[in-house]
Amino acid sequence: MPHPKRVDMSESPGDDAAGETRTADTRERIMEATFRAVSEHGYADLRMRDIGAEMDLSRQVIHYHYDGKYDLLSSFLEYVIEQYEGSVEVEPGTDPKAELDARIDRCLLGPEFDEFSHWDRMKVYHELFAYAQNDDEHRAIFNDHYDHIRDSIVTVVEAGIAAGDFRDVDADLMGQLLTDVIHAARARRLALGHEDAPAEARRAIDEFVYESLLG
Amino acid sequence: MPHPKRVDMSESPGDDAAGETRTADTRERIMEATFRAVSEHGYADLRMRDIGAEMDLSRQVIHYHYDGKYDLLSSFLEYVIEQYEGSVEVEPGTDPKAELDARIDRCLLGPEFDEFSHWDRMKVYHELFAYAQNDDEHRAIFNDHYDHIRDSIVTVVEAGIAAGDFRDVDADLMGQLLTDVIHAARARRLALGHEDAPAEARRAIDEFVYESLLG
Repeated sequence: MPHPKRVDMSESPGDDAAGETRTADTRERIMEATFRAVSEHGYADLRMRDIGAEMDLSRQVIHYHYDGKYDLLSSFLEYVIEQYEGSVEVEPGTDPKAELDARIDRCLLGPEFDEFSHWDRMKVYHELFAYAQNDDEHRAIFNDHYDHIRDSIVTVVEAGIAAGDFRDVDADLMGQLLTDVIHAARARRLALGHEDAPAEARRAIDEFVYESLLG
Repeated sequence: MPHPKRVDMSESPGDDAAGETRTADTRERIMEATFRAVSEHGYADLRMRDIGAEMDLSRQVIHYHYDGKYDLLSSFLEYVIEQYEGSVEVEPGTDPKAELDARIDRCLLGPEFDEFSHWDRMKVYHELFAYAQNDDEHRAIFNDHYDHIRDSIVTVVEAGIAAGDFRDVDADLMGQLLTDVIHAARARRLALGHEDAPAEARRAIDEFVYESLLG
């Protein structure tokens, strides 16, 4: 989370609600500038000045909101993840198979964004993911997010078993397998440039994994 | 490949065979020093001097064999991959199911090394893999290696179908799925610290994927 060190005086004070909106706006502008900078320069070579160059705010605003590059990048990782939380909306009464399909497709293909596509965002996510092996704080953030995705799949598998729609499989293991396949297909599309990887993964799940689930 | 700019004169000349052995030894010592340096500092922060600090040879030897950090890291990537090529030996007459199991286990769990475990080596591999999205030359090297692994699995699936041991599935899609699951489990163990990821992936393949293959 960003932690403003003092009240933002760069615009007229206004009431508290307006102040909070301004801070949220500023945070979003810094985060989107970070997207542009990481997309262009990569994570390894990123400098604070690259982020400043992508903004129409003064660079001092970054230093005012964040204690250096690492603090900014940790907030940035949480910001990227937040955009995916709760992005799957399922109508009440949807059957488990349809919900599972929707969740898998959303993870594989992503929601739509105004600026920067799902794949632009995933490029940043996967680069930070690989780097998390050297970074306990980022690793913990990714673990929370990974658990969240896997658990949302496990929950719908359990619901399908309870409803008699799915066979009585090990739901945790099935949820983990599906999460792994989704993650690998995204990584392969990004790192190796295999544009068809998500569609192939979807087809492989339908042909080879659903048989165990649906009988 | 490394490209010595001139004959190595750091030891007594000897004949050509001895000279080649010396060059190969020197290359291996530089590559293993690079392993130690990348393991310690990570890929993003690596400096040539870090590699020099891990060697009992003079740093000039590195500059003598490689045109800078990028050239060295490209050779290093090929060196890491070479260690895995041909590492699965299958007895003639082994049935396709046993060969497939052996190949999956080798990819998941790795061969044994004298120095640096499979996971130390995979940590470097996966970090370079993530950065390949910014690097066409490294991406091409990884694509060759990825094709090689997937093709070795597709070949044994095809052999099993021809022998009547496996059902008549889409062998390419099955090979791709298995390669993706292996890759994801390795990435998850490394980036998220899930020590059980390879064993979970093995169990998920046995429980949920083999059913489609074996009927």
